Amino acid sequence: MRRAHRIAAITKTLVERPHHVFAVGEFADLFGVARSTLSEDLAIIRATFETLHMGKVETISGAVGGVRYLPLLTREHILSHIEDICSRLREPQRILPGGFVYIDDLISSPEILPTVGSIFATEFGDHAPEYVVTVETAGIPVALQVAHALDVPLVVVRRQSRLTEGPVLTMNFLSGSTRQVETMALSRRALPRGRKVLLIDDFMKAGGTLRGLTDLMGEFECTVVGKGVLIETGWPEEKLIDDHLSLIYLHEVDVKEQKVVVRPADWISL
Amino acid sequence: MRRAHRIAAITKTLVERPHHVFAVGEFADLFGVARSTLSEDLAIIRATFETLHMGKVETISGAVGGVRYLPLLTREHILSHIEDICSRLREPQRILPGGFVYIDDLISSPEILPTVGSIFATEFGDHAPEYVVTVETAGIPVALQVAHALDVPLVVVRRQSRLTEGPVLTMNFLSGSTRQVETMALSRRALPRGRKVLLIDDFMKAGGTLRGLTDLMGEFECTVVGKGVLIETGWPEEKLIDDHLSLIYLHEVDVKEQKVVVRPADWISL
Repeated sequence: MRRAHRIAAITKTLVERPHHVFAVGEFADLFGVARSTLSEDLAIIRATFETLHMGKVETISGAVGGVRYLPLLTREHILSHIEDICSRLREPQRILPGGFVYIDDLISSPEILPTVGSIFATEFGDHAPEYVVTVETAGIPVALQVAHALDVPLVVVRRQSRLTEGPVLTMNFLSGSTRQVETMALSRRALPRGRKVLLIDDFMKAGGTLRGLTDLMGEFECTVVGKGVLIETGWPEEKLIDDHLSLIYLHEVDVKEQKVVVRPADWISL
Repeated sequence: MRRAHRIAAITKTLVERPHHVFAVGEFADLFGVARSTLSEDLAIIRATFETLHMGKVETISGAVGGVRYLPLLTREHILSHIEDICSRLREPQRILPGGFVYIDDLISSPEILPTVGSIFATEFGDHAPEYVVTVETAGIPVALQVAHALDVPLVVVRRQSRLTEGPVLTMNFLSGSTRQVETMALSRRALPRGRKVLLIDDFMKAGGTLRGLTDLMGEFECTVVGKGVLIETGWPEEKLIDDHLSLIYLHEVDVKEQKVVVRPADWISL
């Protein structure tokens, strides 16, 4: 197998599973070439990705020696993708009775979702989360994409416990916007103790859900290494958490003028 | 940019978005090379994937001319992956009180989920579904992975309607195993009329949910081109649907002997 063929096969293997460490020796055995030849192959892939801003190919030294692909996006790429989502959020036909904005099609679109996953992986990858945690239902697609980009399992917290999950830890929490008591439940086997977790949700108003999730993680003796939100609303002004990373600010939904006032979060534009 | 570099960049672009058609001309412009040169690049990628059973690179002729990557798996690959899942399902510690089997960690694992998506894409890709449809909650990760592998949007049917979704079509259906009336609800804007849809769920007993989903699709004037299930139970014997494709048969959970009797579906082994 010639170099060009090897590069096609290695690139596919790396890109299909971001953040996963592959042993360089395995590639060498697969193609029956020396490690030095394989290092040259990897150098070409690395240089290409760097030149074209396609993420990073990272070589891990040590006894085994590994290589992995990190789906790191440039700030420009992040900004242009988020601006894209914002302009779609501004479509007046998204406005629903009661001042809600319809977003379900966006958070499950193949054009939008994978890149959102890569954005959170870019920002939180360094914190090396071992699990991505979200609450059902709307947050699951975004959170799963983040988990895929980081090569870690997804844990879905339920709104109520189910028979098929075994012993469950149930917790009540106060929704920050509706001021109602809500419930979250997580199976004891869903998450081992003492792990590092990344919380991801699609939408945040006061932050009651993320506050509750953080408390729940404490019960599992897990450390929250990051909190990511796709869309944060401007209301209420006072939030129940303050160390989260939002991608989009939804300032206002003007039902009368049929206008959605929305913009990328400040940290992206800076 | 030399051939090896172009192959790395093209492979990454194709593999990151399976089933999506990319214009060959765009690649030619990006690298500043003639179309004939690019065709040679694509031939190398195609041959590599074919030799290594890594799926298919398909060239689409016509005025524009396009190319796409199909994550087609061989029957051997499918069988070995499903056998892998089966041996994990046999772990006695998965057995829960009441004879349930804990599967949540499997359906959200980065080792298992993407390949399950590719299996359903391999089997249903020819039917060209325009949407993948599932019911919340546990089916969402599997269904999203199938949608990604087919480059189509995911539609999540709810168990109850929500304020933030606008006008909603609500339907009652009879659960085949519990004989209880349950509800499903789907926003009118979630799915345009007259489309081809693929139904995906993680678990099926009598098939009441998939039966209900099929009826709901009728209300949206959509055609069901396939029904895929990750795990089907041997009980009850009589099913409410018969034209579905399961990957795994769960015959029995013996709580006393702490044994899970499970095997790959017949069509895979044949």
